[in-house]
Amino acid sequence: MPMALKELAETECVELLASRVVGRVAIVVDGEARVFPVNYVLDGGAIVFRTDAGTKLDAARAGALVTFEVDHSDPLYHTGWSVVAMGRAGAVTDADELRRMQGLPVRAWGRAGHHWVRMPITSVSGRRITSPPVNR
Amino acid sequence: MPMALKELAETECVELLASRVVGRVAIVVDGEARVFPVNYVLDGGAIVFRTDAGTKLDAARAGALVTFEVDHSDPLYHTGWSVVAMGRAGAVTDADELRRMQGLPVRAWGRAGHHWVRMPITSVSGRRITSPPVNR
Repeated sequence: MPMALKELAETECVELLASRVVGRVAIVVDGEARVFPVNYVLDGGAIVFRTDAGTKLDAARAGALVTFEVDHSDPLYHTGWSVVAMGRAGAVTDADELRRMQGLPVRAWGRAGHHWVRMPITSVSGRRITSPPVNR
Repeated sequence: MPMALKELAETECVELLASRVVGRVAIVVDGEARVFPVNYVLDGGAIVFRTDAGTKLDAARAGALVTFEVDHSDPLYHTGWSVVAMGRAGAVTDADELRRMQGLPVRAWGRAGHHWVRMPITSVSGRRITSPPVNR
């Protein structure tokens, strides 16, 4: 049986992260995983996204460990990849840094996205489906 | 400022869950959220997916609380929706039930997917972006 799932090198994970605009932030709250889609941009080894008051901003202000996931599947879902990055989120408060963030090509997924969150990636891993999965 | 994000009714969430084939399972392991893309099918109020030995199967065997997320964004990401379902996962072991599962239209996302996991949905929520997000 050919191996259908291939672990990706770190450089390839970073390239794939840079290739997409929508990912998902997963945060643990009271022992449960909460998952939120976000529009994001890769900025010098960090995931940057916008948000408003709520779970994501609270997590960023607390410097919480955040899981960030991006994936892609082809329409027939026989091939695809997923990349998971982890890091501690932080709310951007420095005025110069905020000005710089505002120049980045990233919209809020919903609402106004008044706050900017930056998550320097501390670990990344990924998988690619390299051949049709063998089923049954 | 028009409200860009609308909470969805439960019936609409279920319809949206039924409309897609790829979602993400988020599981808390050692206080960290792990996120995995899966191909899935909605089966009588439950999320069903296939997996092999690993985090997802361990969680199912332990009856762990699992978060399941599906989202969709249009190519210009000005509109979209996300639905999050929660429930306790279970590994399907009953022979009759397994036979029935094998007739469901769901492939493994990668690898062989020898095991079937069924997660009866206990809560579901969703949001739709109803207008372009107001940025800056």
